[in-house]
Parts: sequence; C-alpha cells; structure tokens
Amino acid sequence: MTEPLRIAIAGLGTVGGGTLRLLATHGAQIAARCGRPISVVAVSARDRKRDRGVDLSGVVWHDNPVELAGRKDIDAVVELIGGSDGPAKALIDAAIAAGKHVVTANKALLALHGSTLAATAETKGVTIAYEAAVAGGIPIIKTLREGLAGNAIRRVYGILNGTCNYILTTMRETGREFGDVLAEAQKLGYAEADPSFDIDGIDAAHKLAILTSLAFGCRVNFAGIHVEGIRNVSAVDIAYASELGYRIKLLGIASLANGAVEQRVHACMVPVGRPIAHIEGVFNAVVTDGDFVGQNMVEGRGAGAGPTASAVVADLMDIARGQTLPAFGLPASDLVDRPAHPMQRHRGAYYVRLMVHDRPGVIADVAAALRDENVSMEAMLQRGRASAEAVPVVITTHETEEAGMTRALARIAKLAAVTEPPHMIRIEPLQG
Amino acid sequence: MTEPLRIAIAGLGTVGGGTLRLLATHGAQIAARCGRPISVVAVSARDRKRDRGVDLSGVVWHDNPVELAGRKDIDAVVELIGGSDGPAKALIDAAIAAGKHVVTANKALLALHGSTLAATAETKGVTIAYEAAVAGGIPIIKTLREGLAGNAIRRVYGILNGTCNYILTTMRETGREFGDVLAEAQKLGYAEADPSFDIDGIDAAHKLAILTSLAFGCRVNFAGIHVEGIRNVSAVDIAYASELGYRIKLLGIASLANGAVEQRVHACMVPVGRPIAHIEGVFNAVVTDGDFVGQNMVEGRGAGAGPTASAVVADLMDIARGQTLPAFGLPASDLVDRPAHPMQRHRGAYYVRLMVHDRPGVIADVAAALRDENVSMEAMLQRGRASAEAVPVVITTHETEEAGMTRALARIAKLAAVTEPPHMIRIEPLQG
Repeated sequence: MTEPLRIAIAGLGTVGGGTLRLLATHGAQIAARCGRPISVVAVSARDRKRDRGVDLSGVVWHDNPVELAGRKDIDAVVELIGGSDGPAKALIDAAIAAGKHVVTANKALLALHGSTLAATAETKGVTIAYEAAVAGGIPIIKTLREGLAGNAIRRVYGILNGTCNYILTTMRETGREFGDVLAEAQKLGYAEADPSFDIDGIDAAHKLAILTSLAFGCRVNFAGIHVEGIRNVSAVDIAYASELGYRIKLLGIASLANGAVEQRVHACMVPVGRPIAHIEGVFNAVVTDGDFVGQNMVEGRGAGAGPTASAVVADLMDIARGQTLPAFGLPASDLVDRPAHPMQRHRGAYYVRLMVHDRPGVIADVAAALRDENVSMEAMLQRGRASAEAVPVVITTHETEEAGMTRALARIAKLAAVTEPPHMIRIEPLQG
Repeated sequence: MTEPLRIAIAGLGTVGGGTLRLLATHGAQIAARCGRPISVVAVSARDRKRDRGVDLSGVVWHDNPVELAGRKDIDAVVELIGGSDGPAKALIDAAIAAGKHVVTANKALLALHGSTLAATAETKGVTIAYEAAVAGGIPIIKTLREGLAGNAIRRVYGILNGTCNYILTTMRETGREFGDVLAEAQKLGYAEADPSFDIDGIDAAHKLAILTSLAFGCRVNFAGIHVEGIRNVSAVDIAYASELGYRIKLLGIASLANGAVEQRVHACMVPVGRPIAHIEGVFNAVVTDGDFVGQNMVEGRGAGAGPTASAVVADLMDIARGQTLPAFGLPASDLVDRPAHPMQRHRGAYYVRLMVHDRPGVIADVAAALRDENVSMEAMLQRGRASAEAVPVVITTHETEEAGMTRALARIAKLAAVTEPPHMIRIEPLQG
C-alpha cells in the first residue's frame, strides 16, 4: 500500500496548527516509516485567515466541519474541535457512519460517549484513536493497550492536569497562596479565564475515565468518579507536607479490587521518595501497576501544540500502517460494566489540619472523636502556642475507612475550640 | 483470524519461565485482546526436570533449540537463550530462513547483528521483535518506534542497567564503597559472579546501540560507543555529588547533531531536580527528546522474570494481532550509516576530584593547566587543610571539549603535589 492516507482536520487551533506543522515538517520521515505519505485533503476552522505557519493553498476548506465526514476522498477525520457534544460529536458520528477512521484529542467526549463510539466504530470496521486525549504527548494509550497488554492491571494513577500541577508546584516553590498563583497562571496562559474544568478536577477525571476503561476492560464510567479539585489546598498545607516528607499532587487514581473499580481525583500527599513526586510544573505522568510488569511510569508534556500534535500524528501513522485496534483494547462487546467502589468505603491514610484555640482538653476531644471512629493517629504536631489567635494542629492517621474519617471530622468541626472546618488531604503511599 | 498463534520458546530460565507463566495465567485475556489465543507448541531448554510452575505435558521438547525453527506447526520462535552468537544466533537465523517471526530478549545479539537480521527478516516477510531486550518491562521500543514516531528524535538517554543503578543507589544511601556494595549485590543475586558485563557498562552499551538505531534511523553501531563503567566511582565522589546538588548515575546517552551520532556510556552527575535522578535501585528509565513532543521519560523494572515476560508477551500479542513493523521502525534498506562523533570532541561540563598535598601554589598550578586548555572553572572546593595526608580538591568546570580536558588532566596528574590520578566524572545538565 503506497497510496497516501488522505485526512481531513476539523479545528485548527493550537493542536490543529501543530498537527499541520508536524505533518509538513516531517512528511518524508512519516512516509518512510509508514510506507505511504499522510496527505491533508480538507480542513474546517472558524478563522481562514490566521497564519498557521504552513501552506494550505491546496487544501479544501469547509465552514461546516460535519461536511468533512461526507467527502469521498478522505480515509480519516481528525477531530480537534473539543467539547463533549455539539459539532465535535456530530462530526465523529458522521465520520464513523461514513466508514472513516477517527482520530481525536477530545477527552470530554470520550469520557461520556467513549464506549458507545467504540462499539459503533467496530460495526463500521473503522478505528477511533485518541492518544492525544490523555496526557498530551505521552503515549500512555498505546502503552496500556499494547505495551503492557499481557498484564492484569491492578491500578493506574497519574498527574493528568498540567494546570493544577503548575499551580501546586509554584505554590510550593514560592510559598504563595492558591488564588494568587492561579491569577498568575491565567496571565501566563497556563490556566483558562474560566479555570473550573482544570482546577476542580473535571479535566483530570475525563482522562481518568478513559484510562480506567483501558486498564480494566470496562465501559467508561465518568459518573462513577469521586472528583475534588485543588481550590482548598493552602500554602500552609504544602509547607506541612514538605515537613512530613510529602509533596501535594492532584492525582487521578483508578484501582480494581474484587471486581469493583475505585476511581477518584483529588489532592494527595505523595512520599517525596516516589518518582512521581518530582514531576513538576506543567508536566504529566502516569503510573501503571501490572501483575507481571510491576510499576511503570511515563512522564512528559501533557499539553501544548507540539506534544499533542505528536500524539495525533502517532495515531495517524498507526492508521497509515494498517495498525488499527479496538479503541479500548478489547472488542467493545467484551467491555463490561464494573461496580463502582464508593468513596465512603475507600481505605487510606489521612492528613488533617485543624485551626484551634489552644485550650486544655482540645487535643483530648479531637483524639476521642478519632478513637470513636476507629481512626488510629500516626502523628500529631502542634507548633504555635497560647496566642489569642487560632493555631494549627496537624494530625496524620494510619489507614482507615473514609466513612469513619468523614464522621470524625464532622464531630471535630463542631468542637467549640475548632475555628474553621478541618482541612483534610489524603495520604497516598503509592507502594508497589 | 481466530487460529492460535503457535509459538516455540528456546530457553526456559528466568525469563522463559516467566513467559510460560504469563501465557498460562492470562491466556483468556490475551485471546480476547488479540482475537486469537497464543499457544506454546514446543520448547527447548537444558533442564527438562526443573519445575517452572506450569504444566508442560502437552508441549514438545527439543534438545537442540535450532530444531524449533524447522517445525512446520509454529508461527513464531521466542529466543531466550542469550549470547551474541552460538545457539541463539543459529536459532534466529534458522527461524528467519524458515519464515517464522522472531521474538527475542537478546540485546548483545541485536547490538552486534541487529541491522543485518532486520534486513534478512524483511526479505522473508517476517518480523524480529525485541521489546524485552531493552529496559525489561518498559515498552521503550514501542514508544520510540510508534508512540513518538512523528518526531525527529534529538537525543535518547537512560539508566539501562539495574545492577549499576542498584550499586550506585546503595553506595549513596549507605556511604559504603563500590567493592563492598558489589559483593553484597552478588550475594543478593543482583549482580553476576562475573559482573563485568554490567559494571563495565557493556550491557548498557548493547541496549544503547539498539535505542540509537531506533531513534535516529541508522544501522546499529556498537563499536562506535564510548564505554566506561562504574568501578572508579568512589563514596567520596558520591558525597560530593550530593553536596553539589547532583546524583551519580550510569547513563547511556545517544545524541544526533549535524548528522553525526554521539553514543556514550559512563557515570554522570545528574542535577537532583531531574526526574531521572530519582530512579533508584534496580529500576531503569529512558528519556527521549523529540522536536515536537519534548522530553518524555519512561521508568520501570529493567529485569526479572515478570517484567521481561511482560515485554516478550507484548511482542507476541503484536504478532498475533498482525501488527508487525520493520524492526527499527524503517525498512532496513532505509537505515543509514551515520558518522560517529568522537568522544574527544564531546563537549560538556566536568567534575574533577584531585588528591593533593596542601602546599602553596598547588591550586595555581592546577588552574594554569586548565586555563592553558581553555577550560573554565565553575567552582572549586577545598575542605581539609594542611594535614600530612593528601586532601581532596574538587573542581567543576563550565562546558568545554573533552580533548582539552583530557590534556589538562594529564598535565595535572604529573604535578608533584597531586598524589593520585585525577577522578573525573562528567556533569550532564540534561536540559530540554
């Protein structure tokens, strides 16, 4: 097969522009590696005049992206519009119906519709490829679906949102507060004007839903994810984390036990000795835990024109080489619905910071609340003393159940000497 | 295609046993993911009686591994005998000639014969797959050949030998000397009775030769690698490295500049802020630097039954799925011979520790030797003073050329006050 793979690209923003530039820059290398060139036949984007750094004079423009799916002269559609529904979904549906392969970077869409799309694509004999949807340039989809495919995966977790990791890294390095660093990230273009998708953990949860499906052979279940963001992480907690030998990271964690899947996204205290504790700034990392291979970590840039284009083009090269696999590694009909392990049944260790008026008996009351819920304290730190202001008391616990911890914290919050709601961050030892 | 992929395995030691166990444990999952089972038809191993934890009653045994290649009832041969020539080479040659796919973990053989074997395999329409040959369970071959295939790779480097990394990690954690830690590693089974392949950098160089070929589209050139091991790394250098903000790691580094390839294996001082500085113990890690994707790192277990079996089975699953690619990512005829960048032309920063009698004028003589070779000092540390014994003087330099550094060190070695040959370790900033 030496005929070109003929593609159409919808959406020529950051990622679309990067994809065009990569294909133009490395066209010869790509053709040599695939045995055939990849040729951009048609595109759709809102702004026809913007300079994308490549010559598009021979390319057909469509105002309506869905029209790309109907073209007889293309083999694959690249969807880079974004959004879980609307034109992105309409284009992908139309492309699959027309028997075109689909490459997409759209994590929101896959987190909500991935299993259904995979099934439809299979009936039409086309592939839906999405390396760019999770962790940007890191080939974690291929790693899970092929590189580690012989293993039973027990757990997959990672730093899946570069904005949050940038904010947490900067907070630690500078001692500044969340709001201040967020405002700066927005100025630098690392965070959106409306940052909620990133900092409330939704984007990370979209990506985790996809990884969970690949890792455990189940249908995507975004609704089953416990999602928290990083708005409540304070500079003082980051300082205590360092003192206790931890880094605070927003992790997405999925694990499989007794057939049930636990999926959660929240700030974690990670031991400083773990490689993932040293993934800083806008970088992403994903750790997989397989029964034969043990723990593997992949790390790299999770966003941006170049890294995301690298992932899009890797998918296109797979298609050009005829290497198409079921989207989630298994025939869609083999993907199962696994029960969700509820967060209140989660077992783990906890960091709790209380702000208290330093009166005799406060610690005894706190300790009693924990004891009554079978929460075993590992350590307690009380630094400041006897000022008129509230002082921090930091407690770490041994492994316990979330439900008991929740009840204990509710009782502690009501103590007269406790001046604000307890600040809780889960401790993740991340052992092999 | 639902017929089984029928395989023969030669060599049932640690990796062969692990491969048998993985195939037996996850047979159903593998069949579901590949659309067909993988079936072990025949094996060859020296010891028929050893318990490998799996039922081999239905499997045909051959005393001569080369006979496996001649069997009409197999599709692929798994070579786990080891050694760059001898029976391993004979088996692979015979298997390719007979039109069988080959899966191997044999880095020495690929480092010496890889390009030739790839060419022969292509003419016979079979694949030679070798994920297990580099970095054990880490899917770095697939990552380079497929996941990052759209990039021009500028550099690839890594911790490629777990034995060396274990020794260096233990030296740092305990302050003990090399010989002492090596002896312990031998007792624990982390180092061979004859440790030279590992600690002299040969094993890492075998793996680097393979990565270089994949990364830069050139024929393997093991002879072109500058190879040093870790015998000369002292506890005192490890302590100084920590003080200066570095970790000492044995790295294999390949880079491409102006069409020439620099390949080197030696101990490096790596800034402690880099994720690779935190890869400890027997773990391996590989960093790739692509023009679009930036730096990516993969990390995991570089050896052992489970991780290596994971890689062997991933290759078998690719073959079962019909996903066979040219061994080095390009048709063998497209692989070029690139000139080797000689080590004496290498440019980098250096750490040098001298043992000197603390007399007036010593530092001036050392500084003059460096100045005369255009070596610019970055820092100098002299701690002990004026004892009768020699005291360490530590110098770090700015980037300079190896040839000048070599001449300066030769001149410094001859100074009367310098009591032993200078200890030099290259500093690698590993910037993006």
